[in-house]
Amino acid sequence: MPHRVDVLLHNIGTLVTPLGNHPRGGNAMKDIQVMEQAAVAIAGGRIAVVGTEEEVRNALQSAGSEIVTSVDAGGRLVTPGLVDPHTHLVHGGSREHELALKRSGVPYLEILAMGGGILSTVTATRKATEDELYTKALKSLNEMMLQGVTTIEAKSGYGLTVDDELKQLRVARRLHEAHPLDLVSTFMGAHAVPPEYKGREDEFVDLIVNEMLPRVTDEGLAEFCDVFCEQGVFSVEQSRRILMEGKRNGLIPKIHADEIVSLGGAQLAGEVGAISAEHLLAASDEGLAEMANAGVIPVLLPGTSFNLGLIQHARARDMIDKYELPVALSTDYNPGSSPTESMQLIISLASLNLKMTPEEILTACTINAANALGRGFEIGTIEAGKAADLAIFDAPNLAYLPYHFGINHTFGVIKSGRVVVWERGVVNA
Amino acid sequence: MPHRVDVLLHNIGTLVTPLGNHPRGGNAMKDIQVMEQAAVAIAGGRIAVVGTEEEVRNALQSAGSEIVTSVDAGGRLVTPGLVDPHTHLVHGGSREHELALKRSGVPYLEILAMGGGILSTVTATRKATEDELYTKALKSLNEMMLQGVTTIEAKSGYGLTVDDELKQLRVARRLHEAHPLDLVSTFMGAHAVPPEYKGREDEFVDLIVNEMLPRVTDEGLAEFCDVFCEQGVFSVEQSRRILMEGKRNGLIPKIHADEIVSLGGAQLAGEVGAISAEHLLAASDEGLAEMANAGVIPVLLPGTSFNLGLIQHARARDMIDKYELPVALSTDYNPGSSPTESMQLIISLASLNLKMTPEEILTACTINAANALGRGFEIGTIEAGKAADLAIFDAPNLAYLPYHFGINHTFGVIKSGRVVVWERGVVNA
Ligand SMILES: [Zn+2]
Ligand SMILES: [Zn+2]
Repeated sequence: MPHRVDVLLHNIGTLVTPLGNHPRGGNAMKDIQVMEQAAVAIAGGRIAVVGTEEEVRNALQSAGSEIVTSVDAGGRLVTPGLVDPHTHLVHGGSREHELALKRSGVPYLEILAMGGGILSTVTATRKATEDELYTKALKSLNEMMLQGVTTIEAKSGYGLTVDDELKQLRVARRLHEAHPLDLVSTFMGAHAVPPEYKGREDEFVDLIVNEMLPRVTDEGLAEFCDVFCEQGVFSVEQSRRILMEGKRNGLIPKIHADEIVSLGGAQLAGEVGAISAEHLLAASDEGLAEMANAGVIPVLLPGTSFNLGLIQHARARDMIDKYELPVALSTDYNPGSSPTESMQLIISLASLNLKMTPEEILTACTINAANALGRGFEIGTIEAGKAADLAIFDAPNLAYLPYHFGINHTFGVIKSGRVVVWERGVVNA
Repeated sequence: MPHRVDVLLHNIGTLVTPLGNHPRGGNAMKDIQVMEQAAVAIAGGRIAVVGTEEEVRNALQSAGSEIVTSVDAGGRLVTPGLVDPHTHLVHGGSREHELALKRSGVPYLEILAMGGGILSTVTATRKATEDELYTKALKSLNEMMLQGVTTIEAKSGYGLTVDDELKQLRVARRLHEAHPLDLVSTFMGAHAVPPEYKGREDEFVDLIVNEMLPRVTDEGLAEFCDVFCEQGVFSVEQSRRILMEGKRNGLIPKIHADEIVSLGGAQLAGEVGAISAEHLLAASDEGLAEMANAGVIPVLLPGTSFNLGLIQHARARDMIDKYELPVALSTDYNPGSSPTESMQLIISLASLNLKMTPEEILTACTINAANALGRGFEIGTIEAGKAADLAIFDAPNLAYLPYHFGINHTFGVIKSGRVVVWERGVVNA
């Protein structure tokens, strides 16, 4: 018991949290703790005690602990800070001018041929200075924080030259250092083949392997290496090479797998020991079984299938019920297929389109997402010893979050024990 | 030119607005005014001058007008305040506990048979005091204002007794008087048949016609009369009787028409001269033609079809292109089929699922929605003489609003010349 409690968050109407450090699959995803009239004592940026308000106050009193600040949750709902494990946060430009083309049914490849699609973002990202990228990303990062998110992943992949990939990753590092939120960086040079390498795809893979990866590792700019394994983008063979070389450079594999075509990305994820595989709309049963065997976390992105107007969504129910996979959820925030920072809309979409229960969704947005970033021992649950990352929602219960859709329910956010959002606004401390 | 300008809203990056007072259908929906570097001078709660900043400043200078307050829009996007022409704002309770049943595919009628669905809201609304309903509705009204909405419609229809219907309408009147936003009231006693009238539907229609309608009129509690014309709810004959009796009592007809079954509600809307017909997912071509002939405004509710997980949506493109109907958009905010106050999500859904262009969507959310409430001469465009109802969005252009989905882009709101939202928060003046 600490002598000094920096923050006592009390008058929590309902506290909900998964328990434990490990990714939770199958029925374990439903098994969350629900506590009424709870309190959380925070010391040194970590959770010191959690329990009913009576329990916590008694424990502090017995130990003679001094309470520096009391924060009244006003009877609201408290969850672990949300974790968004898959974003393309740092990029230049936006693509609203393509909306008319997209909605009138012009195929993506045609938009790409016009220099649109991902190439337009590559052009804008290359053109942007580090400061411009920083300013734009900062705005989105604040938006995420206002949504109740406390840790996010951020990928490179819109530079596609050595310098421009490093530029993106340096922006993420600066944001991680300057912003209350924690950023976890992923190198994704293999996001697309840039126009100057058209027809010479293997040479671009050489560039990634021989020049980008060593530089990223030298500068310590990323923990993970990701690749877009898809028909017409990077083949299974190319993806395998990049991920294995990444591994040799100390980067843990992630993989955009089987989004459109069942190419075998899920199997590859198992084979290379990826920490997570993303999208998976077209993943085969063999692929899912392979992932389950290898302990790969499926990161599902229902905002993307929603925004692309797809009728098919990832098979979350099969993943949970049949393969007992520890599903995680994410925004996939990017300027093309998913221009949204809203984890709360993702929560509603996971209920609506993935048929996940509120308890499964909470697990997916917290401990499973944390484990998709290798952070399960640090964050993702409300338990003594973990970082004091908490979201306070203006909601009477957990089911209210997916149910009451389209608005932001966040009232407050505590990050590493510090109040960073209160009364729905960013706290400038 | 006024001697005294209360507010000069200047440094508007882009001002977008439809022009004129009348509902706009067909190609006219696309034809909006776009002005860069604009300003709006406001006097006595109304728009005095609008133009480029240079034009407006010159006009004010020539006239020797005094500017009391300057408000800097910071280069942002300014639109007319959004109008939400179809909400069930005032009600008791919420229905997140039905989420699990709904998502697991239990049919609505089965949930209804368990006392759930609309009947659970009727029970909660009857049980609630006027003050309880007021407090709950106030919270949603603030949420709407924070979305950039300045005028909404609010229906009764969860009381279904004389007293409880009047209770709902009185709450709406109190909110209209106390809150910056304008509320327009609709009597909708014919929202459902209450359990105590099961099997005696015509007697409930008698109650509506003989007791409710005269009381509503006597107390001046509503402008419009609405009815849920649907298989298993109110027949075309019952709906006709209620709307015609409403008309005799001075209430303008509205109608929830052809949401599920093509029953002929659209035709009835034309026949009784309804100002608007709502939902219309199953409306026939004959019905749409009839509506066009009679000048009925289709109010489309894409949040409802989204939240019900429907693949079919209202035929907005046919309505606009083929029938030149003046489409309006709305949240349908209610605790069952559409628990959202977010007009901005509706904007994204109109783009995604109704295939409306940003310009059509703007027209639908402003002047056409205003006309669905008989307010086209007062609000719905940014023109001299109209009420100074303005929304300021943190967006570079109009297309950005549907494109960047799931978050709230509102920076500020001006209602009747008064700043009521600034820096994303409610201004307590
Ligand atoms: Zn991605
Ligand atoms: Zn309705």
